[in-house]
Amino acid sequence: MNSPKLQYSRRIRKTPYTDRVESLGVSGFSVVNHTILPKGFQHTEQEDYWHLREFVQIWDVGCQRQVSLKGPDAAYLAQLLTPRNLGSAEVGQCLYAPCIDQSAGMLNDPVILMLAEDHFWFSIADSDLLLWAKGIALGMGLTVEIDEPDVWPLAVQGPLSDQLMSEVFGDRIAQLRFFNFDYFDLDGTDFLIARSGFSKQGGFEIYVHNSALCSNVWDQIWSAGGVFNLRPGCPNLIERIEAGLLSYGNEMTRDDNPLHCGLDQFCDVNSDIHYIGREALQSAYSLGPERKITGIVFGEKSSGPCRYPWPVHVDGDAVGYVTSVAWSPRFERNVALAMIGIDYHAENTPVVVEAGTLRLPGVIKPTPMN
Amino acid sequence: MNSPKLQYSRRIRKTPYTDRVESLGVSGFSVVNHTILPKGFQHTEQEDYWHLREFVQIWDVGCQRQVSLKGPDAAYLAQLLTPRNLGSAEVGQCLYAPCIDQSAGMLNDPVILMLAEDHFWFSIADSDLLLWAKGIALGMGLTVEIDEPDVWPLAVQGPLSDQLMSEVFGDRIAQLRFFNFDYFDLDGTDFLIARSGFSKQGGFEIYVHNSALCSNVWDQIWSAGGVFNLRPGCPNLIERIEAGLLSYGNEMTRDDNPLHCGLDQFCDVNSDIHYIGREALQSAYSLGPERKITGIVFGEKSSGPCRYPWPVHVDGDAVGYVTSVAWSPRFERNVALAMIGIDYHAENTPVVVEAGTLRLPGVIKPTPMN
Repeated sequence: MNSPKLQYSRRIRKTPYTDRVESLGVSGFSVVNHTILPKGFQHTEQEDYWHLREFVQIWDVGCQRQVSLKGPDAAYLAQLLTPRNLGSAEVGQCLYAPCIDQSAGMLNDPVILMLAEDHFWFSIADSDLLLWAKGIALGMGLTVEIDEPDVWPLAVQGPLSDQLMSEVFGDRIAQLRFFNFDYFDLDGTDFLIARSGFSKQGGFEIYVHNSALCSNVWDQIWSAGGVFNLRPGCPNLIERIEAGLLSYGNEMTRDDNPLHCGLDQFCDVNSDIHYIGREALQSAYSLGPERKITGIVFGEKSSGPCRYPWPVHVDGDAVGYVTSVAWSPRFERNVALAMIGIDYHAENTPVVVEAGTLRLPGVIKPTPMN
Repeated sequence: MNSPKLQYSRRIRKTPYTDRVESLGVSGFSVVNHTILPKGFQHTEQEDYWHLREFVQIWDVGCQRQVSLKGPDAAYLAQLLTPRNLGSAEVGQCLYAPCIDQSAGMLNDPVILMLAEDHFWFSIADSDLLLWAKGIALGMGLTVEIDEPDVWPLAVQGPLSDQLMSEVFGDRIAQLRFFNFDYFDLDGTDFLIARSGFSKQGGFEIYVHNSALCSNVWDQIWSAGGVFNLRPGCPNLIERIEAGLLSYGNEMTRDDNPLHCGLDQFCDVNSDIHYIGREALQSAYSLGPERKITGIVFGEKSSGPCRYPWPVHVDGDAVGYVTSVAWSPRFERNVALAMIGIDYHAENTPVVVEAGTLRLPGVIKPTPMN
């Protein structure tokens, strides 16, 4: 069926780039953090997938709102909010960091930008982490300013990102290391730019810190992009599933802990740090997870989008559910992320996906799917 | 321009009524609390407006999620979260209650249902109040369970609501007083039903506490509704603006305090209660608000939807901005809610609304607009 239209209102915020994406013919939106996220333009998801893998795209990801922690207790609070050890983090670093509650349930999975020893931005997924941070700080009497600054991330993604960004911000940007940020001049203003983004095709995120500057940044990149076959784009569902990039609300909710999401490597569970959920997470580690996110490829025709958790069966037993799905033109199969019982993770384990009335055979395929 | 489509995903939750509204031809959705809210069916907003004023509608308002506070410190925490005095609240009462932060900024404007002396549901507007409540409770070490229960409100609104609901739940429901709730049997199950809803046309909200029961409740109401000209509907923008019903995110954000929103009557600012933001709110009261929400009627043609705060001018000076707007077939004017400087609130004050390139003359008209 066709998706009904999204009704506009002030409550669902535009970004400073919305006029630009509309003039380029945006065809769909999602809503993240009370803010619109473009979901497509003139091309199909599959065409955008091939283009993203070969060229370069500009994405309005203004919905990636920042939760700013600043002040004497900012570092203490930042560490409270995540089991990832921030003790050795350095200014200029980006850190992907699960945020959990006292039951170890996932609340968000932001990228933390360390701006200064006493200043952090949490670049958040779709939940009001601001309210969690504010509540904790107030309840504990911490001395820290917590707010959402006027920052509107703009992503440039794809293998030609380095060339395009060098044109606009100068050659020095090519030296920027993965998950680091630095400041780069454009027309006399310094812009915070990170080598990061919600794809595995390489690229940058520009944290434009003043909505009045956004149009010019967009326009300069757009103008320079012609020779690189630049197109407007958005996080591509096919690409992110194949890459194993998780989406909060899809692959994980408060009912899942970091182990369920395969985020072990971002948790320093037993290190000597003080974070919320420590006891519950240690207990989860000692028990081991009963389920975990993995990839699946299945079916010889597109299953359509997954609007509720499709059951996954092995030998007739329900062993989990699909969380996100797309048709991959590269595999000529549906590719999915799924939360699957821990005993069924071996590559090529045969599964059957129950997609509405369809029963579609497939196999377990760990991500990234190469 | 046409609204782009809303893309489905698991992250934007369906409700247990979504299958029903889809089979009835829902034409648009909004997103509230990470959950879809139908915004229209086969009829225009204006046709739905007249119908709502004359007959009865059934609304999927499952997006009104509940934040449940339960346990020894539930009452203490509930009071912390709002400047409304809950001390004399009784079990069975609904209380519209502004929730503010320590700067008196609005965080949400839920209806609180007092289920027991130690059990409250906050039926929330569009922000993750759950995370605020959990953060405060954790930070203060309170003994209270905080969760989102499996509750899916269903609204029946319009002047024939009493007759329809009596058919389904029995005549006793007609005795239910405004903003009270009680339990009513259907097929052997008791349902919590309140006389409340996001219109001024009268009606009920059924807090179905088990998603497996939702379809049957919908179907029974639907079956009984034919003789009352029952239609599927949704909160009607025209009706809510004329009624002066506020929408969190539209009329108010964290930048506004309860005085700005005209919510004085719901704040016991100086009473002997302990709530977050007391000092800031007392200060705001002693200074008086510099701006406040009011109604406006303007223009002789539809202005279209308001996607950013349209400036409002008096004698050439910018005095505020429009927050929500719709074309009223009753007034044959645009009706709007607007945040306007406190000196310009006299009824019939001439204003000019700057709607994009248009300059539309109108007047201040306090709500409710009769």
